[in-house]
Amino acid sequence: MVQRITVLGAGSWGTAFAKVLADAGRDVTMWARRAEVADEIRGRHTNGGYLPGIELPDGLTATHDPAEALSGAEAVVLAVPSQTLRANLSGWRDLLPPGAILVSLAKGVELGTLKRMSEVISEITGVSGDEIVVVSGPNLAREIAQAQPAAAVLACVDHDRAVAIQQASFTAYFRPYTNTDVVGCEVGGAAKNVIALSCGMAVGMGLGANTTATLITRGLAEMARLGTKLGADPLTFAGLAGVGDLVATCSSPLSRNRTFGERLGRGETLEQAQAAAGGQVAEGVKSCTSIRELARVHGVDMPITDAMHRVCHEGADPRQVGAELLGRRQKHEWS
Amino acid sequence: MVQRITVLGAGSWGTAFAKVLADAGRDVTMWARRAEVADEIRGRHTNGGYLPGIELPDGLTATHDPAEALSGAEAVVLAVPSQTLRANLSGWRDLLPPGAILVSLAKGVELGTLKRMSEVISEITGVSGDEIVVVSGPNLAREIAQAQPAAAVLACVDHDRAVAIQQASFTAYFRPYTNTDVVGCEVGGAAKNVIALSCGMAVGMGLGANTTATLITRGLAEMARLGTKLGADPLTFAGLAGVGDLVATCSSPLSRNRTFGERLGRGETLEQAQAAAGGQVAEGVKSCTSIRELARVHGVDMPITDAMHRVCHEGADPRQVGAELLGRRQKHEWS
Repeated sequence: MVQRITVLGAGSWGTAFAKVLADAGRDVTMWARRAEVADEIRGRHTNGGYLPGIELPDGLTATHDPAEALSGAEAVVLAVPSQTLRANLSGWRDLLPPGAILVSLAKGVELGTLKRMSEVISEITGVSGDEIVVVSGPNLAREIAQAQPAAAVLACVDHDRAVAIQQASFTAYFRPYTNTDVVGCEVGGAAKNVIALSCGMAVGMGLGANTTATLITRGLAEMARLGTKLGADPLTFAGLAGVGDLVATCSSPLSRNRTFGERLGRGETLEQAQAAAGGQVAEGVKSCTSIRELARVHGVDMPITDAMHRVCHEGADPRQVGAELLGRRQKHEWS
Repeated sequence: MVQRITVLGAGSWGTAFAKVLADAGRDVTMWARRAEVADEIRGRHTNGGYLPGIELPDGLTATHDPAEALSGAEAVVLAVPSQTLRANLSGWRDLLPPGAILVSLAKGVELGTLKRMSEVISEITGVSGDEIVVVSGPNLAREIAQAQPAAAVLACVDHDRAVAIQQASFTAYFRPYTNTDVVGCEVGGAAKNVIALSCGMAVGMGLGANTTATLITRGLAEMARLGTKLGADPLTFAGLAGVGDLVATCSSPLSRNRTFGERLGRGETLEQAQAAAGGQVAEGVKSCTSIRELARVHGVDMPITDAMHRVCHEGADPRQVGAELLGRRQKHEWS
């Protein structure tokens, strides 16, 4: 049984998942980039910057020292942003206890290399991609931290490792399902941020649920096209890591990608939206570039992702792009 | 070309679809059950009881007399509630111009007979089910009446009839796609009302987007199981008439089914929720009974539909039912 677990990264999802593991009875140590965040988690059992108002359980502690965090870990959860995962993990590589199960919470496609997160982890650590567990599903961090009921997917080609993490994270409110389709879960998790950006943009332009539901439907189709081309099981996109994650991210005002898109839809520039988000750009703003390139390399048509790239990085007007997306010709739904 | 079209029924969706047809350049006559509604549409170009604030186009008129409404119609749109369709249509049968294309906006499964709407229409009129056009998709009436961009599905086994209605309803804001899977579109359209009821119930209990996204995902799975068992194409549920219609209905506060479910989730009785909705029960309250029975006859597992039936018609406590739905055992997502 996996008992001693380290979570690397103390953002909202890393903290919420660490809480799930501690609530499931595991001994959890978090690593935080900033010493004051580690001190707050360890001393006051809160992480007010990311999950205000949430009390963290006693079985959860934190440190700013990666060596201390990783000592004796039987499983290591990677909870840092996708575009910084490679740099972070390179620094931690020699500290990882041999045999520890690696678990990825990161959702994205790396800029430049166009690699999925489990591919990056495998490349840096030398651990086979078949042994890495990927977490996905409709999992808005704040709601999980509030112990609202949620289902999740734990994907790993090696079913035993998925089951080990399933047992380590099963609580009354968190229901993880195992799956072996790592590619599908990772493509869905990355692509959904771009679609959420587009839904936010529609909302910012004053459009309602018909438009966002249409973007979700066509977005699901384009992520499934890319995923199946990369070897994913099409069924994954009909499940919790596909439509589930997509719908949660696109429909909640808690979603950073959706909120960022709303600002763009109201006519703000990328710089204005970034300033309003505390200097950060939403994940989908970066992912639309790498996913578009991945789609291009594999000859897959992804019109919504392409449209988001044009708005975010080529100065296109959201209204013009929206009109083009909706102005496609009369045809059969699947032609 | 289909030019002269009659819409039977002047509720919100019938009126919005009539407006689409008129905006597409067709000559449209609506029939309203109440004379004062027909007078208002004809005289003031509004239907304030159903679409307040919406101005109807000049090419749209209305009458209270079904014979007058149907005279010379090349297409007849049936826009009455699903459980009253049989009775209404029986009265109109002898007035239908021979050869007119029949179009169904009704979404439901008939109580007692367990028939889909196109089956009821075929049985009453003698027109082959293969010739009936079914309209579905993410189409909240009010947003379409506001000319917000929306995609729709026109399903008919006879592709030529779907194309005729596509040409008659294509506007700058309304984009109809043709499809031949009538069974899938009708099952999706009926089952989604029950899932929207469950999402509303979760919202009424204070739960967030993770829970509603999970209900949407598992709801999509159960409607697809029923549909494919009845001969539908599984792909339909991944499209506008499946996930698209489902997401729009479940996510919008404009949805009557969702609003009704919210009241039940807050602890109101069926009678209280009904009184608050002006004496009407939501479509999903009726459909959960017929869909559950249809699933039972065909040996299909539909846990959410079953749970909604227990809450609506067997006095079960929504909290208890919710806990049971989420408390299923640890397993693989698709087992």
